[in-house]
Amino acid sequence: MKIIIVGGVAGGMSAATRLRRLMEDAEIIVLEKGPFVSFANCGLPYYVSGEITQRDALLVQTPASLQARFNLDVRPFHEVTKISPATKSVTIKNQQGTVEESYDKLILSPGAKPLIPEMAGLLAADNVYSLRNVPDLDKIMEALEKEPKQATVIGAGFIGLEMAENLKTRGLDVTIIEKAPQVLPPLDEEMAAFVENELKAKGIRVITGESAQELIEAGKKIILTNGEEISSDLTILSVGVRPENTLAVEAGIEVGLGGGILVDENYQTSVSDIFAVGDAIVVKQQITGKDALISLASPANRQGRQVADVIAGLKRKNRGSIGTAIVRVFDLAAASTGLNERVAKQAGLDVQVIHVSGKDHAGYYPGASEVTLKLVFDPTTGTIYGAQGVGANGIDKRIDILATAIKGGLTIFDLPELEFTYAPPFGSAKDPVNLLGYGAINLAEGISESIQWYQLKAEQEKGRQLIDVRNPDELAKGRFPNAISLPLNQLRERMNELDPAKEYIVSCHSGLRSYVAERMLKQNGFNVKNLDGAFALYKTVRPEELIYD
Amino acid sequence: MKIIIVGGVAGGMSAATRLRRLMEDAEIIVLEKGPFVSFANCGLPYYVSGEITQRDALLVQTPASLQARFNLDVRPFHEVTKISPATKSVTIKNQQGTVEESYDKLILSPGAKPLIPEMAGLLAADNVYSLRNVPDLDKIMEALEKEPKQATVIGAGFIGLEMAENLKTRGLDVTIIEKAPQVLPPLDEEMAAFVENELKAKGIRVITGESAQELIEAGKKIILTNGEEISSDLTILSVGVRPENTLAVEAGIEVGLGGGILVDENYQTSVSDIFAVGDAIVVKQQITGKDALISLASPANRQGRQVADVIAGLKRKNRGSIGTAIVRVFDLAAASTGLNERVAKQAGLDVQVIHVSGKDHAGYYPGASEVTLKLVFDPTTGTIYGAQGVGANGIDKRIDILATAIKGGLTIFDLPELEFTYAPPFGSAKDPVNLLGYGAINLAEGISESIQWYQLKAEQEKGRQLIDVRNPDELAKGRFPNAISLPLNQLRERMNELDPAKEYIVSCHSGLRSYVAERMLKQNGFNVKNLDGAFALYKTVRPEELIYD
Repeated sequence: MKIIIVGGVAGGMSAATRLRRLMEDAEIIVLEKGPFVSFANCGLPYYVSGEITQRDALLVQTPASLQARFNLDVRPFHEVTKISPATKSVTIKNQQGTVEESYDKLILSPGAKPLIPEMAGLLAADNVYSLRNVPDLDKIMEALEKEPKQATVIGAGFIGLEMAENLKTRGLDVTIIEKAPQVLPPLDEEMAAFVENELKAKGIRVITGESAQELIEAGKKIILTNGEEISSDLTILSVGVRPENTLAVEAGIEVGLGGGILVDENYQTSVSDIFAVGDAIVVKQQITGKDALISLASPANRQGRQVADVIAGLKRKNRGSIGTAIVRVFDLAAASTGLNERVAKQAGLDVQVIHVSGKDHAGYYPGASEVTLKLVFDPTTGTIYGAQGVGANGIDKRIDILATAIKGGLTIFDLPELEFTYAPPFGSAKDPVNLLGYGAINLAEGISESIQWYQLKAEQEKGRQLIDVRNPDELAKGRFPNAISLPLNQLRERMNELDPAKEYIVSCHSGLRSYVAERMLKQNGFNVKNLDGAFALYKTVRPEELIYD
Repeated sequence: MKIIIVGGVAGGMSAATRLRRLMEDAEIIVLEKGPFVSFANCGLPYYVSGEITQRDALLVQTPASLQARFNLDVRPFHEVTKISPATKSVTIKNQQGTVEESYDKLILSPGAKPLIPEMAGLLAADNVYSLRNVPDLDKIMEALEKEPKQATVIGAGFIGLEMAENLKTRGLDVTIIEKAPQVLPPLDEEMAAFVENELKAKGIRVITGESAQELIEAGKKIILTNGEEISSDLTILSVGVRPENTLAVEAGIEVGLGGGILVDENYQTSVSDIFAVGDAIVVKQQITGKDALISLASPANRQGRQVADVIAGLKRKNRGSIGTAIVRVFDLAAASTGLNERVAKQAGLDVQVIHVSGKDHAGYYPGASEVTLKLVFDPTTGTIYGAQGVGANGIDKRIDILATAIKGGLTIFDLPELEFTYAPPFGSAKDPVNLLGYGAINLAEGISESIQWYQLKAEQEKGRQLIDVRNPDELAKGRFPNAISLPLNQLRERMNELDPAKEYIVSCHSGLRSYVAERMLKQNGFNVKNLDGAFALYKTVRPEELIYD
């Protein structure tokens, strides 16, 4: 059997090596239009700062190593320009000219391409780059040799944030511009606020809610939608990607959502003997069951392996993806899995959320740092829709655990049952993930009621009185306007100061003491709700609304 | 309602605070025979070395803080000496004398007590300590002020290993003695070998397969079962624990396995209105469904909270435990969850295992370190019975993920589907947990066949020929006796050197290349098996059997 694979990175290369392990006699040809295969595209930004020092480290495999070990015919600089399903052949442009190559099975793994926004002056600019592969990186490194001072990153998604950090670490003045009202749109606003604060604390200028509208002076100036002019010696475009579908569309292969290639559960496209995997395909969002585009390395690798299994006659099917991702932003990690609150509500789901703060390991052991987690769930069934986390350490662990819980169909009622490794350097007897479960169950069972940070003002306007149960010395670090101060440890004896006819909201620093206060008040007949995430979360997302004495 | 709780640490204190949040009007009395409640017992060993510098950091709550916040009547130095179920009262010995206290509900959370081995001369020794609480720690710290030189730790379980490390860090010469043939008996031998090697590399003398038989010279000398004499200025006894059941037994409460208090799914003992939680109770091992004693902080805390829910009228039941634990041993972490291979086989289960090595994060990003995982599973159904891991970093994460997978009933067929956070500082596109799944499926589907390290010699004696597919330069670091050297990249062209009638085993360094070799040979008609874990694992557990040129 002769198998041609178009695209020699994640999905394509996983398919090729697995195919060889299953089909020793197959002829396997990998056609890659670029100079490199199997490179570490997720590592590219870290070469910019010098955190990854060796460019070769990014080149995981070479055609020679793949030939020697897997007997693969890997051809860089071979761009497939046409698929001819009728003759089962592809047309290839290489350095010598144009050739035809026939196939029995064809696997498309073309990936995604950077989205290029509508922007006047873009063609005339000579300092604008995107970053998807090693040649892109080489161009950026070349531009950096001219020692630019001011860099602008357009788009504050995962790659944009990584580029902003690495350019800053390299010593440039960095501005990041995001069209959405927040950085890191895959996260909800209040969780993304931790990231925005970290960017600002590290000296990056963050502009949200504005787009780059026009480039002038060959790109040296960027004009925003609000009219502001930003000087930029070097500009990175990272406003997202879309499926690389040109070849597929021209071959008559059906595409769907956002131009993504449509495949069945066996990665079979609408044209027989043509398969597709990776960032270019439409997948099923496992939680909603709806079509989605998920451009992540992990699913791409899995799909590549699975399509090899399918071609080799093994039973395998694409069960879909939930989408799990993480980004490091200086001293902070921010991660998410599944649906965020915004998307879950847009999908029409019955959504409740909870925020929990804890430590990455036992607080009494040196070096513990704050972990802030958010869970998005169905308060009736307990179904977990998604989770987000921010913090210095241990965020990857908690989100990976919650991603596993979602994949396993665990509900909020199962989270307290999870038994984690606990020794002081590694965790706590009650992990923040357990606490998420306890808190969510309290909400689901009506033991606790909460309001979210974005509901506080409206609830106060409706007449609910906010009680801050922190100690007086904590108020100096900032306090809510229009709140009564009533420290938790005095609440039992001073409860008579409260009006049983009035409705209350309680807040403390992180939400733990206010929950204790809420229970105390509830059991004494008060109508009271807990401000989820409490003062700490509110201060993160709306610092300007607080009073600092 | 008047609720008395016996024991003021993990389970007891979780019960007390949850009870207060649910039953504002209840009278809640916590009776603790020791001087402290709610202390960090898992942190005690780290105070010995000074890694935790403040003794107060170990005292998480005080009676005063618990009174102020939770209106709890917490009484240290109150030892319950008798339970009288007929009159629903307890007899208490305190500093003033003896008092009676009635209860409506009684919760027993007495914990476990150190097992004291049969050892002649133990009573006459004045330098032998165990470590379960702060007074124990204080005694050890006092003994350390006399600047002992030589310390001996008897028992190489979790606490024994932590004490060995912390005493060594403090500057003592440390010997650790374990009766079992290996350190850390919860792990299988080859995984525990990583720990033993780390102990030795850090200068600890490790003696396995021997017991301390007799103490002479007031404990200054320890005589082993093999007759050897060990000098010891300070000896730590850590050979395990057993349920503290005296009170329960005397009150006529039924006990079971190992003397553990028997409770139903609602933590109700055999005597009405008496409940029990924590290390003292018999729980259901969730994987086998059999009775078990699991002395861990995490289940104890959960049980304490759940018994409070039960008493407050909420529906809650004890679903059992799987047992997840971790220990740091100098620069290594070792963790396990569920059943190990030995226990799973003893339980009569159909067991297959696989070892996988990977990196804690992307290999091309600085600082990646080795993660070695072992999975114990049913090769037919794919049920996951347990997992173990060793490595410098990221072990807690992988075992927590696998513990979640076990709790969620995920099988080996689900592990490749798990989508983890991936960015170069945090993980890999194919996490070692995914690789475990791929490897286990290969075994389950017959794509690969493996033998274990302990089967190698017997297989060779039966006539199987071992092929080492590492490169010649790797052989200098050690090689198998009686192996053919045939580097993987030459295997296709040199396959004619092999005898198709012969049976083969392939090995490389970590098992990845040998799997590729196995597939290549299998597809060419050879009868071949892969040495699971390959040379690296064999060298860890049986270094003395290898040849070093």
